[in-house]
Amino acid sequence: MHVHVNAATSVDGKLSSRRREQIKISGDDDFARVDEIRATTDAVLVGVGTVLADDPHLTLDDDELVSAREARGEPPHPARVVADSRARTPTDARILDDEATTYVLVSAAAPADRRADLEASGAVIVEAGEERVSFPEACDALEARGVERLMVEGGGEVIFSLFSDGLVDELSLYVGSMVIGGRDAPTLADGDGFVADFPSLSLRAVERVDDGVLLTYDC
Amino acid sequence: MHVHVNAATSVDGKLSSRRREQIKISGDDDFARVDEIRATTDAVLVGVGTVLADDPHLTLDDDELVSAREARGEPPHPARVVADSRARTPTDARILDDEATTYVLVSAAAPADRRADLEASGAVIVEAGEERVSFPEACDALEARGVERLMVEGGGEVIFSLFSDGLVDELSLYVGSMVIGGRDAPTLADGDGFVADFPSLSLRAVERVDDGVLLTYDC
Repeated sequence: MHVHVNAATSVDGKLSSRRREQIKISGDDDFARVDEIRATTDAVLVGVGTVLADDPHLTLDDDELVSAREARGEPPHPARVVADSRARTPTDARILDDEATTYVLVSAAAPADRRADLEASGAVIVEAGEERVSFPEACDALEARGVERLMVEGGGEVIFSLFSDGLVDELSLYVGSMVIGGRDAPTLADGDGFVADFPSLSLRAVERVDDGVLLTYDC
Repeated sequence: MHVHVNAATSVDGKLSSRRREQIKISGDDDFARVDEIRATTDAVLVGVGTVLADDPHLTLDDDELVSAREARGEPPHPARVVADSRARTPTDARILDDEATTYVLVSAAAPADRRADLEASGAVIVEAGEERVSFPEACDALEARGVERLMVEGGGEVIFSLFSDGLVDELSLYVGSMVIGGRDAPTLADGDGFVADFPSLSLRAVERVDDGVLLTYDC
């Protein structure tokens, strides 16, 4: 499986403010670029924190990209995936609508009633891991369901876990020309963090986009 | 006064790991660049957190840069400045040696015995602010002592305060091609963070340096 992390941060590495409200960090050119990556992927993954904070839809905005997928014999939108160890995704979350398949990755610790509620709301439950979602297992399970290309749109906890497990192949990072600040604001990679053996990336491309810069790394 | 913030972060905006140990984020070309900025500045500012964690010396490494300063009739090294509201700088800190003038910015809340100890160790005490250092007042006081160009080398608390007070004129950010991660690791701009009216910067230059990228902003 090819795992592509795509994110936009402020110059100080923040995905959002300490209030975790969605902030417009990039502009129209970057939004179009993100839509194009989504259009070529089999599934888009976010953490449950992102679902609870932003209630994203994760479908394609551009009708031409949808038509192109259909012309290739693909579903109109990539599948949506939520990493949700305890099955906390609200049953009225936008990602649970019927526009695309939605996988909810849970751990063995997820309550049975919450799983049943999510299945009744249209989710496909995938169990991987005991207390927390095991991403190596989850990626194998998604691959068995035909997901060869996985795009990851955050948040910082999921992205850190994927780097920690050595699963990231590519990182596209849009650095917006703003300061968010905050010792408690979410960053591109949160979690416990590394203290040694820091993952080393290879900077493939540097490009000015909107009023910021897009950095592309091979991992 | 011209305030120039210079820092190196990982791709996820971290200055260091959660253990606050110094991490080599950039390479020789970037170190040389930082030395050249130091050589053209009147003073170099860090927060007391950086002094306690790294015990930096903040003098110039390159003898030619020292000679060039002396040929211009300047002191061999820029002055050193510590933002230290409670006067916690250790009396054996390397920045208190006699290679350059050292200003310790304190608040009115700094204990008298600690101030006296630091003065006895060679520091020039500058009081600005009641409970915490007031940077607008401190900058005025430094300017009155001949500091026209101030370089800021961190950490994230000081940098956030300077952005919050609207005092930053220029930001040079080296983004190293590594992931540090950690929700408790220090970032380029910590503090309470902004929740609205985020400072907007203007991206002046983008340049590959070592295996990372140097971003220069007008603020």
